[in-house]
Amino acid sequence: MSDNMKYDVIIVGAGVFGMATAFYLKQTDRALNVMVIDREGGAGEGNTCKSAAGIRNTFSSPENVILTNTSINKFEDIEKKGFGLNIKMCGYLWLMTDDKFKKSQDAIYAMKENGVDFSVLFAEELRAIPGLNIDNYSSDECQMMGLSRIKSGLLGKKCGSIDPGAIVSYYENEFKKLGGITKFNTKVESLILEPEEKLDIPGEPLVWQEPKIAGVRTANGEIYAKTTIIAAGVWAKELLDPIGLDAHIKPKKRQLFQVKGSSLEPLIKNCPGFNDLNMLPFTIIQKAGIYVKAEPREECIYVGCADNIGRAFNFDCEPERDYYENSILPVLVEVFPQFKNARLESMIAGSYAYNTIDKNPYIFKPMRDLVIVSGDSGSGIMKCDAVGRIATALYWGEEYAILYPNVPFKVSKLGVETRDVTFERFVI
Amino acid sequence: MSDNMKYDVIIVGAGVFGMATAFYLKQTDRALNVMVIDREGGAGEGNTCKSAAGIRNTFSSPENVILTNTSINKFEDIEKKGFGLNIKMCGYLWLMTDDKFKKSQDAIYAMKENGVDFSVLFAEELRAIPGLNIDNYSSDECQMMGLSRIKSGLLGKKCGSIDPGAIVSYYENEFKKLGGITKFNTKVESLILEPEEKLDIPGEPLVWQEPKIAGVRTANGEIYAKTTIIAAGVWAKELLDPIGLDAHIKPKKRQLFQVKGSSLEPLIKNCPGFNDLNMLPFTIIQKAGIYVKAEPREECIYVGCADNIGRAFNFDCEPERDYYENSILPVLVEVFPQFKNARLESMIAGSYAYNTIDKNPYIFKPMRDLVIVSGDSGSGIMKCDAVGRIATALYWGEEYAILYPNVPFKVSKLGVETRDVTFERFVI
Repeated sequence: MSDNMKYDVIIVGAGVFGMATAFYLKQTDRALNVMVIDREGGAGEGNTCKSAAGIRNTFSSPENVILTNTSINKFEDIEKKGFGLNIKMCGYLWLMTDDKFKKSQDAIYAMKENGVDFSVLFAEELRAIPGLNIDNYSSDECQMMGLSRIKSGLLGKKCGSIDPGAIVSYYENEFKKLGGITKFNTKVESLILEPEEKLDIPGEPLVWQEPKIAGVRTANGEIYAKTTIIAAGVWAKELLDPIGLDAHIKPKKRQLFQVKGSSLEPLIKNCPGFNDLNMLPFTIIQKAGIYVKAEPREECIYVGCADNIGRAFNFDCEPERDYYENSILPVLVEVFPQFKNARLESMIAGSYAYNTIDKNPYIFKPMRDLVIVSGDSGSGIMKCDAVGRIATALYWGEEYAILYPNVPFKVSKLGVETRDVTFERFVI
Repeated sequence: MSDNMKYDVIIVGAGVFGMATAFYLKQTDRALNVMVIDREGGAGEGNTCKSAAGIRNTFSSPENVILTNTSINKFEDIEKKGFGLNIKMCGYLWLMTDDKFKKSQDAIYAMKENGVDFSVLFAEELRAIPGLNIDNYSSDECQMMGLSRIKSGLLGKKCGSIDPGAIVSYYENEFKKLGGITKFNTKVESLILEPEEKLDIPGEPLVWQEPKIAGVRTANGEIYAKTTIIAAGVWAKELLDPIGLDAHIKPKKRQLFQVKGSSLEPLIKNCPGFNDLNMLPFTIIQKAGIYVKAEPREECIYVGCADNIGRAFNFDCEPERDYYENSILPVLVEVFPQFKNARLESMIAGSYAYNTIDKNPYIFKPMRDLVIVSGDSGSGIMKCDAVGRIATALYWGEEYAILYPNVPFKVSKLGVETRDVTFERFVI
């Protein structure tokens, strides 16, 4: 099929949401002409590959629990069937001060009600973690930084990490096996908004004309489709603002710092008692949203921070050494003193597409020929299988999507007018 | 008090939301040092004065009904006590095709349940409106524009219009009587985000420091306050994006076209049967969100259009003659042929601050010293009294605001995490 012809579906964005949606669309109807288009050179090369790629089902919103549970189940099945995703079920560990535990209590009760598998650990049990400072927080520095002793830990079991590039590749391969088409290195500049019947009056579509999305404009020309699906993450705003539709997300820079050093080795491969992998769980320390993720394959630890107030909403993607050194490291070395002798090896920055409203995805159809898949809020990878199925069900006009392996989910819950989700309270 | 001192409260924005909040704050505690700051030369000179300033309680969201009902009651009381607001309770009339009525049915039932006073009129009753074309829509032009015969009308009773400048002046006067301070011609350029305890490290507040809003930066220097309230309409985004907080609004251009001509006179002053004023109700025609508002004082009709898809989210405020001539007028002359001989006298454009999420206001406190009053969605004037009271209650940490004359409203309903409102389905 040449590009001058009309596709059944164009999907803008070859990240996890776009590729998962592409695959499930083709799976439901192999005859559908589906093309995924992306400005990068390959699938998952935008913000997907800049993710810390943690996977967890520890959410307080029942919707987020279903989306992650079913997606993680599918990931495990994919790997079991031979496609390597580098899944490491190392657990997620939240270190808690008394104060933090109290503030999280409602969210923790909600998780219990949602059937999430976790346990609460006493400080004594956390002493198994090499070097972890449990109760030595009386220094002036610690006081100044508001650090206090670790009283407990919350360990999520069905949690760990995945290779974000591998999961995108899985969907891309399956999509292509079914005849799906990808087009890379092609930036979508705008959506083609037209009246159903063109009259060649300036300013069309005029308010009395029926508007439609006819496809997309790229630097290399227009591409037409019966349905356009926007799965462009933070870039959705650039496509939707000009036509007056809201993707319900805000872009926020997130950085990952790769840290290496022999002092970190025990955390990476000699941290018994939390998982079969003998490694530190994905650990969120008790202050400021700082987290550490051990990566045995690369013999390193990735450090990130979910900062909130003060971190602008914008498209800035420059990693900042100062941020690591002044904001993260002073706290980190108090909690894990072994970072004092480790070195910052590399750093990377990407953008979260935050849904600041309720922190559940938005999947909706504001026009007959336009589907928007949005609002990953930094947890898109761990929800992508469910999101792809829900977007597909919405495309077909189904009331329910069937999530893996056989879990019905009401599509309209993630819509705008029909939205029916719970505000997510358990965020990093 | 000099500007080098610290105010108890700075309110950014002297529109209806800002001035109503300012007044109710001072009313609850006259000792509070409150300053309202605005870049315009006076109160209500931003988007407030560019409003069509319709007032109605015909909403499907019970929250919107309470906010408007109580505000309209207060407006009537203000006028009864001698402060002229140019209130005209002329009613709101939606002209309906069969199709439009069917699509609105759920919203209409919701209004009934909410106790909204309206009646459904048969087409025959609408013949009292001078010149209105009820059933002559068989021409090619009408077919092309998707116009069809009017089958019914929905007339909201507790509806009409108000002088937006007058209601702002009322709050400003009362605020000043209590010793409130205004500062005009002063643009707030940014919020002062600082750590609770400054250490003079670059990049403060660092993630481990407690952040606070210390006040605002203007071209003429910094102004400090214990609490900052953002009531800046569409401009809230400019202040909040840099610190990573979401005002939950999108800016959308809205235009008003002032039309004059002797052919319009019967609509303005000889349209019996709908109200005591002998004038056309604020009328929404059956297509494309076009509305007309008679203004006897100026002997004119204002025409507007709540266009949706295709109208960009941006700060453009240039009125467009072409839009009136190509988009609005072709439809308008089919419904009200007398517009054929009327002339476009002037035009104006402003920005709605759309809450695209659920179309109820957002009033929340994301930090201990920051209150955000937002999301008017083009119905801010008709809700301003309630909004000012709710923002005041939030400032004081009250669970309930008492709306006029004595209606409790749970403050947390309009918050973010605790949000509990119904999606508004009855929009123009």
